[in-house]
Amino acid sequence: MADTKVFLLDGGSLVLDGFHIWWNKGPGGEVRFPVYSVLVDHPKGKFLIDTGYDFDHVQKVLPFEKPQQSEQQTIPGALKLLGLEPKDIDLVFNSHFHFDHVGGNKFFPDTKKICHKDELSQAARCQPFEVLGYSDLAFSAEVAEARGMSDQLTMGQTAANTRYETIEGDVELAPGVTLVYTPGHTVGHYSLLVEFDNRRPLLLTLDAAYTRKNYDHDINAGFHIDPVAGVNSMRRLKEIEKQKNAEVLFSHDPESFKDYKIGVNYYG
Amino acid sequence: MADTKVFLLDGGSLVLDGFHIWWNKGPGGEVRFPVYSVLVDHPKGKFLIDTGYDFDHVQKVLPFEKPQQSEQQTIPGALKLLGLEPKDIDLVFNSHFHFDHVGGNKFFPDTKKICHKDELSQAARCQPFEVLGYSDLAFSAEVAEARGMSDQLTMGQTAANTRYETIEGDVELAPGVTLVYTPGHTVGHYSLLVEFDNRRPLLLTLDAAYTRKNYDHDINAGFHIDPVAGVNSMRRLKEIEKQKNAEVLFSHDPESFKDYKIGVNYYG
Repeated sequence: MADTKVFLLDGGSLVLDGFHIWWNKGPGGEVRFPVYSVLVDHPKGKFLIDTGYDFDHVQKVLPFEKPQQSEQQTIPGALKLLGLEPKDIDLVFNSHFHFDHVGGNKFFPDTKKICHKDELSQAARCQPFEVLGYSDLAFSAEVAEARGMSDQLTMGQTAANTRYETIEGDVELAPGVTLVYTPGHTVGHYSLLVEFDNRRPLLLTLDAAYTRKNYDHDINAGFHIDPVAGVNSMRRLKEIEKQKNAEVLFSHDPESFKDYKIGVNYYG
Repeated sequence: MADTKVFLLDGGSLVLDGFHIWWNKGPGGEVRFPVYSVLVDHPKGKFLIDTGYDFDHVQKVLPFEKPQQSEQQTIPGALKLLGLEPKDIDLVFNSHFHFDHVGGNKFFPDTKKICHKDELSQAARCQPFEVLGYSDLAFSAEVAEARGMSDQLTMGQTAANTRYETIEGDVELAPGVTLVYTPGHTVGHYSLLVEFDNRRPLLLTLDAAYTRKNYDHDINAGFHIDPVAGVNSMRRLKEIEKQKNAEVLFSHDPESFKDYKIGVNYYG
C-alpha cells in the first residue's frame, strides 16, 4: 500500500497588522502572510483540510487584508495542478470556519464534510469580535441564514448539500491521520497530525499557531475567543511534537513558508 | 450628613498602540491616554479605588509606554492637592492588579486593602500574555515572592502590611458605593457605581471599557483574559447605566477625559 502524501495547496496571501498576528507583542505594521490548505492523500481516501479564502469575498468584505491570489491559488486551480478535481476529494474537514479556511467549501456540494460540534453554532451566533472572522458563510446555508446573509449562497447551496458531520475531542480520520483538538483561536479549532511509514510525522498547527514565533513563545494570534485555552493548545502541540519527533508546519508564517513544499511537491 | 464626593486623581499618562486599546479594531498607531485613580469621600470613610502607576517601574519595565507623570500626578502628590495624606485614606480597593492600577499601593502599608478573591492568585501565577500587565508587584510581598521579584519590595513591604481582604461578586462598600464585578479584562476585575443624594449616579467602568468607543461597540481592550466575559461585562454595565440613569466615566479615554473633573474639582 502506498504511503500517505501531504500536499500543501498554496492559496495566495493576505495582509494583517503585526499586532493581529502576535497578540500584544507585535511589532505592529503590515505583514503579508501565506494561506494554504492541506491535501492528505491517504490509502483510505483523499482528505482536504481547509479550503483557503474566496478572493471576491475578501475584496468585498475585508479589502484591507489586500488579497493576492492567482487562478492556480484557488481550490479548483490548486487541485488541477495535481491533476485533480473537487469531485476527487473524499472528505472536507475545516479546522475552523474563519473566512480564510472555508472559502472553497462551496466547490464540494457532494462531498462528506466534517467539523467540530460547536463550530457551526458559534459561526451562526458569534461574538461581536468574531464577526469578520466568521464573515464568509457560503460554506453553510444554515449558518448564512442564521446570520441573515443568505445572499452569499450563490452556488446553489442548500441545507442538504452544506451539511456537516460533527466531531469532538481528538479524532483519527484514518490510520495515522489525527485531528488534534486545539481550542482557543475558536471554540472548535483543530490541528492535524499526519504519520507516515517512511518519514517523520508532520504536525500542522493550523491556526493554533500562525507562525513559529507564536508557537515558540506561546503567543496567541490577536484573533481568539479563549486565550488561556490557546496557550494550553500550543503547549499540548509542543508535547506532541516532542513525543512524536514531528516536523511542525505553521499556518500563516511568511518566513517558514518559504521552505515548505508546495504545488506538486509533497511530504511523504 | 454630607453627601458623597468623588475626586478623580489625575495620575499622568501612558502610550499604547491603538490595536491594544481597541482590540482587533484599531486604528493602529500611538495613542496617549490618561491614567487616574478614584477617591470616594463618603460619610463612612475615604475610599481610594486604584492607585495609578509608578513612574520608575514603567520607565524601567515598559518604557515603550512613554510615561508622563508630574509630582502632583503621583498618589501622594494628588492627595496633597486635596489637603490629604495617605494615612487619611480608610480603604484601598484595586479594580485589578495591572501595573497602572497598583503603583501607589506601596504608600498604604497600614491601610485596609481589598481585592477580588482570584486577582491575587492570578497575579502570582499569571498567563504568559499577562506578564507585563502584572509586572509591578510592589503591592504584595506574597505575589512578588511567587513571581521571583522580591527586589521590587523596596519600601519595607511584608506579607503582613500588604495583606488583602478578598471579596467576590458585587459588593457594597458603603451605602451607595457599589463594586460591580466585571471580569474579562482580568479574572477579578471590578467597576464602580457611586450613588449620591443630590446628583446622578456615576458609573466608572474602570478597565471594563477603556474608552467610550470600547463601551459603545462592545470592543474589549487588547489586554484581556476572557473576551466573552468582557463583552458580557460591558453589556451589564450598559444595563446598569440605563437602570440608574448613570453618568459613565471611562478609565483611559483621551477624548472623554478632557471633560472630567480632576484636581480639586469633584462629582457630588
